[in-house]
Amino acid sequence: MNSDLQDYSHKRLNILTGEWVLVSPHRAKRPWQGQNEAVSNEVRPAHDPNCYLCAGNKRINGETNPNYEDVFVFTNDFAALQTGSKDFTIEDGLLTAQSEHGICKVICFSPDHSKSLAEMDPSEIEKVVIAWQREYNALAKNDFIEYVQIFENKGAVMGCSNPHPHGQIWSQSSLPNEIIKKDENQSEYFNKKNRSLLGDYLDQELSKQERIIFENDAFVVLVPFWAVWPYETMIVPKRHQPNILGLKGHETLLFSEAISVLTKVYDKLFNTSFPYSSGIHQAPTNDKDNSHWHWHMSFYPPLLRSATVKKFMVGYEMFGSPQRDITAEIACEKLKQLI
Amino acid sequence: MNSDLQDYSHKRLNILTGEWVLVSPHRAKRPWQGQNEAVSNEVRPAHDPNCYLCAGNKRINGETNPNYEDVFVFTNDFAALQTGSKDFTIEDGLLTAQSEHGICKVICFSPDHSKSLAEMDPSEIEKVVIAWQREYNALAKNDFIEYVQIFENKGAVMGCSNPHPHGQIWSQSSLPNEIIKKDENQSEYFNKKNRSLLGDYLDQELSKQERIIFENDAFVVLVPFWAVWPYETMIVPKRHQPNILGLKGHETLLFSEAISVLTKVYDKLFNTSFPYSSGIHQAPTNDKDNSHWHWHMSFYPPLLRSATVKKFMVGYEMFGSPQRDITAEIACEKLKQLI
Ligand SMILES: O=P(O)(O)O[C@H]1O[C@H](CO)[C@@H](O)[C@H](O)[C@H]1O
Ligand SMILES: O=P(O)(O)O[C@H]1O[C@H](CO)[C@@H](O)[C@H](O)[C@H]1O
Repeated sequence: MNSDLQDYSHKRLNILTGEWVLVSPHRAKRPWQGQNEAVSNEVRPAHDPNCYLCAGNKRINGETNPNYEDVFVFTNDFAALQTGSKDFTIEDGLLTAQSEHGICKVICFSPDHSKSLAEMDPSEIEKVVIAWQREYNALAKNDFIEYVQIFENKGAVMGCSNPHPHGQIWSQSSLPNEIIKKDENQSEYFNKKNRSLLGDYLDQELSKQERIIFENDAFVVLVPFWAVWPYETMIVPKRHQPNILGLKGHETLLFSEAISVLTKVYDKLFNTSFPYSSGIHQAPTNDKDNSHWHWHMSFYPPLLRSATVKKFMVGYEMFGSPQRDITAEIACEKLKQLI
Repeated sequence: MNSDLQDYSHKRLNILTGEWVLVSPHRAKRPWQGQNEAVSNEVRPAHDPNCYLCAGNKRINGETNPNYEDVFVFTNDFAALQTGSKDFTIEDGLLTAQSEHGICKVICFSPDHSKSLAEMDPSEIEKVVIAWQREYNALAKNDFIEYVQIFENKGAVMGCSNPHPHGQIWSQSSLPNEIIKKDENQSEYFNKKNRSLLGDYLDQELSKQERIIFENDAFVVLVPFWAVWPYETMIVPKRHQPNILGLKGHETLLFSEAISVLTKVYDKLFNTSFPYSSGIHQAPTNDKDNSHWHWHMSFYPPLLRSATVKKFMVGYEMFGSPQRDITAEIACEKLKQLI
């Protein structure tokens, strides 16, 4: 391992977005006198009569949830994106705006209110993966849907307003910022080399073995070289495939195993139900050739030092670049030991 | 005002960064069942013997603060950037890294531990502005400093670890991400039109009067058309000038007045000491021609509904684009009424 990267302040390039992260390895010693997060390790019941996501309960819009047994998907009652609303474009001098249409869904991972992905078996998680595939496929069939974002906000600190295990799917009529960047960088590389950018990166990581947490036949779990969040990780399929519909045979189960191993390790790290936002970046669902895309799932967890002390992405990070204290290599080392 | 922008989901373009924000005006009605922030409206003493920023107290590194009477600047005891450390570049396949050098400073706005900018007079704030100018100028004189980021994290929710009124200045040997984007967009416009992008934008906003909160002879305080944070604002000098050294005569006082009016309005909005990160984006301090730069100060406050309910920039926002519920126009209306 290059020891300069462990000793001196430096920046690292995210090859997917083209943006930099500032790394300050020497800064981890700084004492913390700031805000502590509330930890809630309360034991939840398997069914909560007041939870609008539990089976059989009423939602805010009056509908009653079915008595679902594994995964349950419904359209968000307070969707950020609307369908069928007016189409318009504003190009008024330096003011540019455009209507954006879309469909937002909520996906309950399990009827069991008390569980998180970390407490579900890979075979249960596989039902979530299959629901993600089904939804991606169905949403993509809408002519006006160009991109489908699957994500989960876990924990109150990540803005999650209900502890029932669930994620969301927002699909929309144009490409969001992060996808535009990843599309450009993957496309440029693929056009030049006729190989997947992330595939080549994976080969390099596998040969170095400095940032790999776990692998099975189809997936690698690693801390990317350019990780921003203290314990940021990525699950990458070994085979180049643009979207999750590319999973074959038992690869859905192997993906579920990767999610299971990672979320369990996270919970062990600070002995708490580990908060994060996770998301799957994959090929747009437009008519273009998207074969340069190599899908991946990322986890952005905010905790830095303990169950109560998070990393704040504030002043410098908002106005300059993201900044981290512990290096990707140290983070990987800590996570790997907990498997 | 275009009513489509108040009724339907749409995206707006940030002309400075080239990125989009998703706006969901219809979503403000969504009930909130998530995390509440702690509010601390405790009255603080004018001098706290345990505060490492108060005059005459000892800092963690053993140094004693002078008995300063207005503004006090010192080098950060736990700086994220180092000077004089090794120079290196890593170009190892798809791993790209580069050493980054810099100087980080802390600036105490006042010896009075109990105050914030909102509680200081414009004439007191002017001393902060003059210190910013002095620091920008002195740091720029270092050959290896290419950019100087002045910022403030205010409030525990913004990662501020000490309530003593203070900001920071991080200066570094290359341009951070946000500056690279703003540099490109301002430069492109300036080369084409030989006019300042932000100057032309300002003219348009002044003629529309839909997003202006306040103006004096030299400054405009407005909610930018592309605002991301619920009550995000910008202070823009009317005269085109690349950096804060361009302020002439009583313009430092007029800038201080703008800061004073804005921070007071913020405190009134939810009847709390309003948290935010603020920062000044200005011309790099490298050898290039930076006359396309038009400096400005932005405020990114997280609160959305009340002193305890903030906007979470999480899952969709991290993986897709920033998203907001109330429109820039509604936010401006609310702030303007509080002057
Ligand atoms: O430097 P401070 O106040 O200790 O730290 C705060 O501001 C820094 C600059 O935005 C951030 O990197 C830290 O995460 C935040 O807690
Ligand atoms: O949709 P929810 O869970 O109510 O809301 C949460 O996730 C959304 C998507 O990331 C964010 O826009 C909200 O700020 C956050 O509180």
